[in-house]
Amino acid sequence: MRHRIAAVAASALLVLAGSAGAAQAKPDSLYAPSALVLTVAQGDEQATVVRASTLSCAPTAQGTHPDPQAACAALAATSGSLDRLLAAPAPDRACPLHYDPVTVTADGVWEGKRIAWKHTFSNTCAMSTTLDDNHVFAF
Amino acid sequence: MRHRIAAVAASALLVLAGSAGAAQAKPDSLYAPSALVLTVAQGDEQATVVRASTLSCAPTAQGTHPDPQAACAALAATSGSLDRLLAAPAPDRACPLHYDPVTVTADGVWEGKRIAWKHTFSNTCAMSTTLDDNHVFAF
Repeated sequence: MRHRIAAVAASALLVLAGSAGAAQAKPDSLYAPSALVLTVAQGDEQATVVRASTLSCAPTAQGTHPDPQAACAALAATSGSLDRLLAAPAPDRACPLHYDPVTVTADGVWEGKRIAWKHTFSNTCAMSTTLDDNHVFAF
Repeated sequence: MRHRIAAVAASALLVLAGSAGAAQAKPDSLYAPSALVLTVAQGDEQATVVRASTLSCAPTAQGTHPDPQAACAALAATSGSLDRLLAAPAPDRACPLHYDPVTVTADGVWEGKRIAWKHTFSNTCAMSTTLDDNHVFAF
């Protein structure tokens, strides 16, 4: 009897192991993909891209972005409405008023939904004052 | 004297190591970025994204894409005109004519220029017949 229980338990484990393997082979069915290309460009319209990073946030935070964990956390906090990244510029910093525009973009997919987001700052100081705290464009 | 030469050689090495470090800290100035999000979606307009991969091709091929080297090579062969991926469907395969559309997209930057590319196939067979050889959407 004891042997039989052990055998049943062993085959149950094999079945579990088998289904786990199948799940890993098709990770796309387990989560909505979140994958973005982030860019920083000089200029406003038809800007030249000077830096770009890839960021994937599901199933784990990774990419050429230097701090994928922090960037994914900041993006998750916006629930996909990236204008929320602009919500809180640091109040204690003053920027010069000259116009030397910098454009940031985020294109791709967030939790399965397409994203094409773009914002132009009047200069790098304005960009850094607004965005430095959230790490998304710190690359 | 021997000691002095060794010391000079050692500081020369330190200087070299220091400049290599600085170069790595600002890779953006050394090459035009190539970074993409590739997606496969069910449907045509307003399609639901079922799979997404990130791909960065400079300075090295990397990303969540399962074969970044092959995908970057295939994209490099298009010189950024991704319609060239559609040029050569396998001639020896017949596909059913039913309409169950699949849309593939590539968004981001290729050699510093923005890319937003999209193509809808009438069904997965048509997609696979056209794209399987180039690995770009094999994820």
